[in-house]
Amino acid sequence: MQVLLLHPGAMGASIGAALVSRGHFVSWVAEGRSAATASRASEAGLRAVDTLAGAVADAEVAISVCPPDAAVTLAKNVQAAGFEGTYVDGNAVAPATAREVASIFPASYVDGGIIGPPAWREGATRFYLSGANAADIAALFDGSLVDARAMGERIDAASALKMCYAAFTKGSSALILAVRALAERNGVTEDLLREWNVSQPGLTGRSAATATSTSPKAWRFEGEMREIAATFAAADLPDGFHQAAAEIYARMAGLKDAASPDIDAALSAIVQSDSR
Amino acid sequence: MQVLLLHPGAMGASIGAALVSRGHFVSWVAEGRSAATASRASEAGLRAVDTLAGAVADAEVAISVCPPDAAVTLAKNVQAAGFEGTYVDGNAVAPATAREVASIFPASYVDGGIIGPPAWREGATRFYLSGANAADIAALFDGSLVDARAMGERIDAASALKMCYAAFTKGSSALILAVRALAERNGVTEDLLREWNVSQPGLTGRSAATATSTSPKAWRFEGEMREIAATFAAADLPDGFHQAAAEIYARMAGLKDAASPDIDAALSAIVQSDSR
Repeated sequence: MQVLLLHPGAMGASIGAALVSRGHFVSWVAEGRSAATASRASEAGLRAVDTLAGAVADAEVAISVCPPDAAVTLAKNVQAAGFEGTYVDGNAVAPATAREVASIFPASYVDGGIIGPPAWREGATRFYLSGANAADIAALFDGSLVDARAMGERIDAASALKMCYAAFTKGSSALILAVRALAERNGVTEDLLREWNVSQPGLTGRSAATATSTSPKAWRFEGEMREIAATFAAADLPDGFHQAAAEIYARMAGLKDAASPDIDAALSAIVQSDSR
Repeated sequence: MQVLLLHPGAMGASIGAALVSRGHFVSWVAEGRSAATASRASEAGLRAVDTLAGAVADAEVAISVCPPDAAVTLAKNVQAAGFEGTYVDGNAVAPATAREVASIFPASYVDGGIIGPPAWREGATRFYLSGANAADIAALFDGSLVDARAMGERIDAASALKMCYAAFTKGSSALILAVRALAERNGVTEDLLREWNVSQPGLTGRSAATATSTSPKAWRFEGEMREIAATFAAADLPDGFHQAAAEIYARMAGLKDAASPDIDAALSAIVQSDSR
C-alpha cells in the first residue's frame, strides 16, 4: 500500500516505520520541514517527496499525525492538493473536530487516536481507529510494533476515546504541578510535602517526576487541553479543568529545550509567567 | 480550659471529644441544631448550652468547625455575642477568608486547618494551627487522638496548607469522576476502561471507589472547591480546576442520603444535572 505520512515527528516517524516494517511504501513531504524531521524520516525508512501535490498523486492512504490545532488546516491542504484516497486523522482532537475533518473527506475518512509513547517497542502504543474503513487501516499494521485497533463505524469514536484518556492523564499531571505552584506562592511547600509524606505517600515523588517528564512536551499540550475542554463543553460538563491545564502547560512552553527540567524549573516557569 | 465548639458535626464532635479526653470543659450551642447533632455532642461528652450568648460568657477558646461558606458569618455572630477569648477557625477556607476572620478577632485569633477523617483513631487526623497563640491551642490536644501541630505565627498558613492539600485530593477525585462522565456522554466507557486496564492499572477501581467514598460528602465540597479556586486566583494561577470541581460536586449534592452511592449513581447525577 502507498501511504503518505504527515508528518514524521517523534510519533509520526514511529507510525511510518511500523508500516515500512510490513512492506508498505511510506512517503512524507519535505517542503517546509526541519533537518531533524528529515533525519527522523530517513531513519524510519520513509521516502521524501518534495511537495504535497507530488505526494498525494500516488498515495492511497494519508495519515495525519500533527499538533491538534493544525489538524483541520492540514486536512484542507491535503484535500486541496487533490488527494482521493482514505484520510486518517490520528490527532488528539475533539469529536467535533474529527467530524469537521471527516466532512472534508466525504468519500473515505477514518478517525484515529494514538495512546502511548512513540511506537518503538511492542505492546506500548495503541492506534485506535473508527469509521467505515477502520478495519482496513488497522490491518495495515498487523504484525508491526503499532497495536492498531478498529472500534467500529462511528466517525468520531477514536477521538472521543483519546480525549477521555488524555483528560485524566494530562489533566492530573497539570493539577499536581498547579498545586505545587500554589504551595510555592503561599509559602507552605515544606508543610505540604511533609503532610503528603504522612498521608499521601508517593505524591512528592510523583510531582517531581511529572515535572521532569512533562516539561519537554508541555509546549504541545496546550492545544490538546483546549480540544479536551471543548469536548467537555460539548457534553454539557464543566470545561474548567482543562482550560486551567492549558494555561499551566502554556506557562511551561519555554521548557521545551531546558537542560534539566526538574520540579524547580517547572514551578519557576508556572509561577513567573503570571499576569502580575 | 473552657472551650466552645461550633459545631459538633462529624468532624467537630471528634475534635470536642479529644479536648474532653484531656480534661477540658467543652460546650456547644443547641439552638437551631438537629437531633442528630445533639446526639453526637452528647456521645462526645460535650455540654449543651441553649444560646450563643450564654455559651460565650465563660468560654476562653472558641473553635469553629463548619462548612467554609458559613465561616465568616459564624465568626461575626460569635464576636457580636460578646466573645472575648481566642477564636480558632478550623475551616477549609482560602487564606484571604482566614485573614477576614482574623480581622474580626484582632485580640486573639488562631488559624486552623484539619487534614484527615474525624479523629476517632490515633495518627489519622492532623489539626494544623498558625498565629501568635497557635502553640497554646495545640497544647490543649497533647496526648489526645488529634495530632495538633503549630506552624508558626502567620495568620493564614494553616488555611493555605489545607487549601493546597485538598486542591489535589478533592480536585483529582472530581477530575476522575468528570472523565468517567465524559466517557459516558461520548459512548466510549467500555473502550476507556479497557485502555485503562492496559496502561493505567488501578484507575477503573479508583474511579469506582472515589464515587462511593465521595458521593455522601459531595454536598459539602462545593464551597470548599470555591475557596480553593479563590486561593488559586489570588496566587495568579488558573482557578478553573476547582471551579469545575465545584460544579461536579454540586451536581452530586443529591447523593447525600443515597442508599448505595456507586459509580453508576454518581455518573447519573453528574450527567443528568446538566443544563440541557
